[in-house]
Amino acid sequence: MKKINQTFLTAIEKELQHQVSRLDETHTVIYHEMLTYHMGWTGEGAGEKARGKRIRPLLVLLAASASGGNWEKALPLAAGIELIHNFSLFHDDIQDKSETRRGRLTAWKIWGVAQAINAGDGMFILANLAMGDLAKSYPAEMVLAGEKIFQETCLNLTRGQHLDIDYEKREMLSVGDYWTMIAGKTATLIATSMQLGALFGNADEETQNAYRDFGHYLGLAFQVQDDILGIWGDEALTGKSTASDLLEGKKSLPVLYGLEKDGEFAKKWKEGPVKEADVREMAQYLEVEGARLKAQRQADQMTDLALKSLQMANPQGEAGDALFSLAERLLGREA
Amino acid sequence: MKKINQTFLTAIEKELQHQVSRLDETHTVIYHEMLTYHMGWTGEGAGEKARGKRIRPLLVLLAASASGGNWEKALPLAAGIELIHNFSLFHDDIQDKSETRRGRLTAWKIWGVAQAINAGDGMFILANLAMGDLAKSYPAEMVLAGEKIFQETCLNLTRGQHLDIDYEKREMLSVGDYWTMIAGKTATLIATSMQLGALFGNADEETQNAYRDFGHYLGLAFQVQDDILGIWGDEALTGKSTASDLLEGKKSLPVLYGLEKDGEFAKKWKEGPVKEADVREMAQYLEVEGARLKAQRQADQMTDLALKSLQMANPQGEAGDALFSLAERLLGREA
Repeated sequence: MKKINQTFLTAIEKELQHQVSRLDETHTVIYHEMLTYHMGWTGEGAGEKARGKRIRPLLVLLAASASGGNWEKALPLAAGIELIHNFSLFHDDIQDKSETRRGRLTAWKIWGVAQAINAGDGMFILANLAMGDLAKSYPAEMVLAGEKIFQETCLNLTRGQHLDIDYEKREMLSVGDYWTMIAGKTATLIATSMQLGALFGNADEETQNAYRDFGHYLGLAFQVQDDILGIWGDEALTGKSTASDLLEGKKSLPVLYGLEKDGEFAKKWKEGPVKEADVREMAQYLEVEGARLKAQRQADQMTDLALKSLQMANPQGEAGDALFSLAERLLGREA
Repeated sequence: MKKINQTFLTAIEKELQHQVSRLDETHTVIYHEMLTYHMGWTGEGAGEKARGKRIRPLLVLLAASASGGNWEKALPLAAGIELIHNFSLFHDDIQDKSETRRGRLTAWKIWGVAQAINAGDGMFILANLAMGDLAKSYPAEMVLAGEKIFQETCLNLTRGQHLDIDYEKREMLSVGDYWTMIAGKTATLIATSMQLGALFGNADEETQNAYRDFGHYLGLAFQVQDDILGIWGDEALTGKSTASDLLEGKKSLPVLYGLEKDGEFAKKWKEGPVKEADVREMAQYLEVEGARLKAQRQADQMTDLALKSLQMANPQGEAGDALFSLAERLLGREA
């Protein structure tokens, strides 16, 4: 990993701990603990693996720095973005009834649904308070403009989440529905990480938009890759069972292509929930019927668009180099 | 009701609808519907009764106006406060497994827990966006100062909620624990309604604090009254079964006094969940053992403190008169 990334990641972790420490009060010790546990800092299994990759706040600081701005001033923004991401995971785990995340029990499994809903709410509020801290280093008008984009992004996130939950029950789903959903659920926060990083790095509007486009396509490409890995990936790599997406009946992009094709896969799928014994066969049907290739082509196309947008944004210096490397790593194009 | 209140309530409803309309998009119709249902505007049983009393936004506008400010400019603040209140109810209903609110099915009963968590999140985001709209009428620094108080209030709300959920499981609970919990769960948002109303009404800091104190004590007095009504109230008046607080095992103030007394009530209480057949007897024990009177005295004391703080704030004009009347009505001191 690049040295600049390590410098940024260390500063991000410190800023996150500072932001979450607002909750550290005598009367609500467990509430605070729920958040530090979820962030990967405390409890069983705490440590780097439990933290997630902090990709979004890293993108924020790289965009700010590659736009010629002072990355240290943008730290509260980086923290705000990462807290929003973690807020959505917090509630997502309850909504999906996921019992583990990053190899550890989820918060609701330990402390119950009621407290976990509340702690997720708290994580969101901490994100908002972090955003407010930008006022220490930037003009008030600029902070308000950033907050507006930030909140609209949160609304898009919940729109994506609404569709995701809704789609689970729906029998018929189109590929178009899929793109609408993941644009909200996955791409919007990455796009905003880039856009706001550039805004608070003092980039002009055109550059902000190019960074935003990069984030948008990066998010889409990343999600499609994740969908592919969710069926054909390596469990050790992704941290989740590769069979789980089919077992869970997740309508990911390859599945939708398979349903569109209306062949053996679609026939089997419509017979009811996929059984463990049928998972390998189902994945093979999908592959033979071209769904994997089609999804991979989409991922490649989004990847190209992402990299073209990044070139347009013309990121500078060490942070600029790091952005290209990070994009290539995330998009699976590493040498 | 005073004419000024009606003018304000009409304007509040319009502003709320404007703020919630941000969600009205073709792809997420049901999401929008969940919110308009919860707000009492659509669905079965829609209408005034389903809306709640909009006390908090009314307090905002009255404080702004009684401080000599322009209440119309403060409308986004009033909406933001009411949306936060409704956000907390949205999640509260899931956390408490409440199947009805204001005589109608709760959102999670209709659309399921996963969607209801998400829609509650959306309500919170709409509140934040409403707050951002204040920038149209006020200096950016002032908006940021208001937002900081607003978000810290939200954090206090979740602290109170955390304690409330935690207390349900705890065997022993002190009266001190009770005050800490309701300060967060009930009083903080009412206190902030008054403080921010005064801030955006251009009141000086001392006056803002007097208004805040008024709201704080009003909230405490109101909650204790509600606790008393939850055991001895009239179902037609409160919209919930008067027995329900005892049946639900709610550790309200009279119950805590009863447990402190360690008499017949405490003995029965410790035998396990209160049965329907025992509710009347339990309520009588509480009354005989002085718990009702003690709670009423606390409510009276908080009421006095509230009214003294309001006098200190010295609210002016028609809005000032309306504030005193509203306080007396809420505190059950109407002629």
